[in-house]
Amino acid sequence: MAGGGGTRLWPLSRKEKPKQLLPLLGKETLFQSTVARLEALFPPERILVVTVAEQAREMKEQVPSIPEENYLIEPAPRGTASVVALAASVLRKRDPQAVMTIQTADHHIRDGNLFNNLISTAFEVAEKEYLVTLGITPTFPSTGYGYIQQGHALSGDYKYPVYTVKRFKEKPDEATAQLLLQSGDHSWNSGMFIWRVDVILAEIERQMPELFSAVTEISSVWNTPQRDEVLRSQWDGLKSETIDYGIMEKAGKVAVLPAGGLGWSDVGSWDSLFEVLLPDADGNIAVNAQHMEVDSHHTLVYSVNDQRLVVTIGMDGVVVVDSGDVLLVCKTDQAQKVRDVVERLRKQKKDEYL
Amino acid sequence: MAGGGGTRLWPLSRKEKPKQLLPLLGKETLFQSTVARLEALFPPERILVVTVAEQAREMKEQVPSIPEENYLIEPAPRGTASVVALAASVLRKRDPQAVMTIQTADHHIRDGNLFNNLISTAFEVAEKEYLVTLGITPTFPSTGYGYIQQGHALSGDYKYPVYTVKRFKEKPDEATAQLLLQSGDHSWNSGMFIWRVDVILAEIERQMPELFSAVTEISSVWNTPQRDEVLRSQWDGLKSETIDYGIMEKAGKVAVLPAGGLGWSDVGSWDSLFEVLLPDADGNIAVNAQHMEVDSHHTLVYSVNDQRLVVTIGMDGVVVVDSGDVLLVCKTDQAQKVRDVVERLRKQKKDEYL
Repeated sequence: MAGGGGTRLWPLSRKEKPKQLLPLLGKETLFQSTVARLEALFPPERILVVTVAEQAREMKEQVPSIPEENYLIEPAPRGTASVVALAASVLRKRDPQAVMTIQTADHHIRDGNLFNNLISTAFEVAEKEYLVTLGITPTFPSTGYGYIQQGHALSGDYKYPVYTVKRFKEKPDEATAQLLLQSGDHSWNSGMFIWRVDVILAEIERQMPELFSAVTEISSVWNTPQRDEVLRSQWDGLKSETIDYGIMEKAGKVAVLPAGGLGWSDVGSWDSLFEVLLPDADGNIAVNAQHMEVDSHHTLVYSVNDQRLVVTIGMDGVVVVDSGDVLLVCKTDQAQKVRDVVERLRKQKKDEYL
Repeated sequence: MAGGGGTRLWPLSRKEKPKQLLPLLGKETLFQSTVARLEALFPPERILVVTVAEQAREMKEQVPSIPEENYLIEPAPRGTASVVALAASVLRKRDPQAVMTIQTADHHIRDGNLFNNLISTAFEVAEKEYLVTLGITPTFPSTGYGYIQQGHALSGDYKYPVYTVKRFKEKPDEATAQLLLQSGDHSWNSGMFIWRVDVILAEIERQMPELFSAVTEISSVWNTPQRDEVLRSQWDGLKSETIDYGIMEKAGKVAVLPAGGLGWSDVGSWDSLFEVLLPDADGNIAVNAQHMEVDSHHTLVYSVNDQRLVVTIGMDGVVVVDSGDVLLVCKTDQAQKVRDVVERLRKQKKDEYL
């Protein structure tokens, strides 16, 4: 899943070049890192990319290893349920017995080995007709993620413990998040799934029959000249829905594989870079920037121009982002407000900054 | 007096283009504002500019009204005593009865009318053979300025009260500054002087005979082809000294004209801009910058590029300066540390940023 934006990483993340296409953490873009992670498990011919047309060209340049025909172009965003249904349906035509994993192109995972091992275990569980989700062991009472409550342990000779899913929970309020963190049996919903294509398509057919019929129509003409026309007309009629709400919450056999230690982050906003990158002794981080500091701590300097000198004096808990045409100076604990700035610029029709 | 640097206003103020040549407060440079202020009192033919060669070209471009021959070029900086002595000596050749005022090119004065009136009164006092200085009524216990203690009121029909000077005091420590502020009879030493050229030259002859003899040599060949050679050789032998320490502290008849309400500032460092410019309701100031703020207060944004959008979120008491090649983000109350940064760059031989 490689469409979508990421307005909280503005001014780096832009309409034309969103988050996943940026070298946010250094040299590689998040999209490149995601593909590299998957290429340790699958050959590139078995990696499908679902995205929108505006982003596909840049993606092909960034990752030439994935064949042209593996790009599935959404005519317009219709939520993750549609993305999953389309990919599963196209995949089933190639291989009716396929097991697939759904990965987002704009997340970061520090421990690639653990990721490989967890995914391998998840594939074994998925063979048993489970819809498997990787749950992230919470490290703080986040109100920004959905939660998954685990049920009983699955029997079976798996390398990692696997549980049935008792309940999916939407993003909680502060107090609830605190309780969920303390409970010990809740994970964050990371949006990483593993399942057999026939199993997920059966669930889609049961719970979202219109979506199922649309993607069946589309995949039936996939390798014909009618593809674009059918795709467009079917897509137009779809309502936007997430896979979590549309399918997972009421699905039959769902399992969760709790993943602590992955070093997972959705790199959702500027403050998240402090979790992902390694700060120096003063807690400062410089990405692609010449940073000179005096009495500064816990300060992130991100620049697109490494010729520019960035000097901070007396800063603490501050993010400085230089995107060339925009300069952002933001208290780290108010990083969520970047979205409000983007919203204001949109209302002011300052498209050049969006 | 238009030589000198201003490292605390780095990264705007640079070796090649120091403080007085910058439009620090808006459209006009400090040098242009100073000349404009003086042109309300004197025709440009009677304004002398003492500076160094590297700066003269830019000054002539910024202020074409002052005649070429009114630029006195110091071969190298030798302190304000040398500047004053040279100017007075050259001036005496033009007009032995001249009364002169010494003004610095890099200060700001808000109330131009009051300035004119005070200078006029000071000229009247100077005619009575006083060395007159404008004293700035202190508004806070500054440790950055020297102080002048006033003695008894001068008799005479002056528009403003004038006092004899009891004592000049060097920059005090914090506790002393507090006492001086409370005393009610101390002013800041602004470096603005008014005197007859024959009176100041007599004082220079008495207290700094070597300097007097040097400038007498120089002015004697001023309008001949030997000027450059004599200037250079005499200048080489001078020791660097300020007019305050070298002359004023031990001078005979000294008077002070206390000037409250001038809105004077030496624009010495970034924090001083909050005294000089008019902040908006949140205390924010933007100079030549597109500034969009969220929950930001008492924040100064200064940019050389008004096409760039500067966004601040959650900032309080912060100065953001974008000079193109350098970006400075600094707590306002630590603005003095800018000098340390310049020092560090000098040691690292990063001349491109100096």
